[in-house]
Amino acid sequence: MPLPRRWVTSCMFRYNGAQLLIDCGEGTQIALREKGWSFKPVGVIALTHFHADHIAGLPGFLLTMGNADRTEPLVVIGPKGTPRIMQAVRTLAPELPFDIECLEIEGDEQTFSLYGMDITAFRVRHNITCYAYKIEISRAGRFDAERAKAAGIPLKYWNPLQKGQTIEENGMTYTPDMVLGPPRKGLKVVYATDTRPTDDIAQHAANADLFICEGMYGEPDSDKKAREHRHMTMQEAARLAQMAQPRQMWLTHYSPSMMRPELFMDSVRNIFPQSLAAKDGQETTLLFEEE
Amino acid sequence: MPLPRRWVTSCMFRYNGAQLLIDCGEGTQIALREKGWSFKPVGVIALTHFHADHIAGLPGFLLTMGNADRTEPLVVIGPKGTPRIMQAVRTLAPELPFDIECLEIEGDEQTFSLYGMDITAFRVRHNITCYAYKIEISRAGRFDAERAKAAGIPLKYWNPLQKGQTIEENGMTYTPDMVLGPPRKGLKVVYATDTRPTDDIAQHAANADLFICEGMYGEPDSDKKAREHRHMTMQEAARLAQMAQPRQMWLTHYSPSMMRPELFMDSVRNIFPQSLAAKDGQETTLLFEEE
Repeated sequence: MPLPRRWVTSCMFRYNGAQLLIDCGEGTQIALREKGWSFKPVGVIALTHFHADHIAGLPGFLLTMGNADRTEPLVVIGPKGTPRIMQAVRTLAPELPFDIECLEIEGDEQTFSLYGMDITAFRVRHNITCYAYKIEISRAGRFDAERAKAAGIPLKYWNPLQKGQTIEENGMTYTPDMVLGPPRKGLKVVYATDTRPTDDIAQHAANADLFICEGMYGEPDSDKKAREHRHMTMQEAARLAQMAQPRQMWLTHYSPSMMRPELFMDSVRNIFPQSLAAKDGQETTLLFEEE
Repeated sequence: MPLPRRWVTSCMFRYNGAQLLIDCGEGTQIALREKGWSFKPVGVIALTHFHADHIAGLPGFLLTMGNADRTEPLVVIGPKGTPRIMQAVRTLAPELPFDIECLEIEGDEQTFSLYGMDITAFRVRHNITCYAYKIEISRAGRFDAERAKAAGIPLKYWNPLQKGQTIEENGMTYTPDMVLGPPRKGLKVVYATDTRPTDDIAQHAANADLFICEGMYGEPDSDKKAREHRHMTMQEAARLAQMAQPRQMWLTHYSPSMMRPELFMDSVRNIFPQSLAAKDGQETTLLFEEE
């Protein structure tokens, strides 16, 4: 349930001119406007599950995307049943100038490679079918001019090879691995809400740059409530982070009954120090490591 | 389109413990929380038309009503097609603990008497079927003890007669008009958005206590744009008010391109002085006249 200054769920990823939105609770389009970001580059919307606090913002969001003159198709990834949900959304927002392509997640885990991002949906444990998402951006190895020279590769191919293209000329084939060192560390973000803690979440979040996790309850002895409602306490999230060792963890998706999540952060940081009680509009920029 | 601090359309009427909501744009439930009002007494939602800026808040709104433990049925009044819209809403918010009764407006005008309010939907002129609403609360005449005494009505019936009940006893019939003076002035509010100006609007709004009207554009020479998009300028609204002579007019439903509606209020007040450029959260209490 939204509260004043604490609305419902949504998380935007922006990479290389494209945007991926995970979930779209009511008010998401308003939050996006407050950021001053554009609607037009949103190429993918990924849905974790079909509870209204995660999807009720879709009709307004899509309509505003349409008003921003987006005409390229939109990809919507979600659990089985996504086309039925999007049909209902389109009944409320019928006039859109772009097509919607629904990708229903098959099985417990599936990876979609879109706009330079590897988007892995993996099943989590809620009271309805729900997925968490792992977003990975890989980074090629450093260009090795000495090797390129030694292999006798013409200078004009260095740049396309560096960009990952394969070149064939006069019976010769030049491949990127001939000029690039080993892949460098990329970026990884994991987003998991509406679930009990699972080992799988920790494994996916291993060494992530950012692990965003639900922390529905914070009070001592709220484990029982969390188990009953198939949610997670802030401390359970911290224990996942302790296993996964991401660079940082953000907590989100607080119960409306928990007015001040920051009150419980001492107990969270005792378990995993690099923890933050995220607020609406929380934002960070993740950069490739210099190398 | 919602802007920060200027969201989309909704208007709540609260009367005698009941609530009527006209339209439910995205974020309505958040606005209601900011008011500190309860969701539970919302007995009727009336829809003017099916553009998303007027209905996209419904899934979240109904879900929050459900979370407030409302179990009494909800009445939804709207144009023909309302059941199809509500079906889509329920696809996004399937688990509600109350029934929804859809009342499709028949013809150009229909009055629904609910919770002590006479709610008249009347057709206006937009690019899809759209209705304005008139809310009337009638007020019985003053109780006349002298007449009651003269008619020999037993004392124990005075109170039920005053409340409008008819009493039969020993072959005698006592009716409220035997003890009440002529009806006193009640309250009237008219709410009209998404329409060209029509005489009908002015007639319904005649002597209203409050006339809420769209003022989509304010700039000089925006008449053409208003005609094209089937909307109304602030000055056209003022001319309706000039005909109708309500106690006050509030303008609403501004174009997102009009950043500061108050800039045009001089030209509006030149036509109808009791005009206000309403803001989000605008609120008033209308009282019966003392008599």
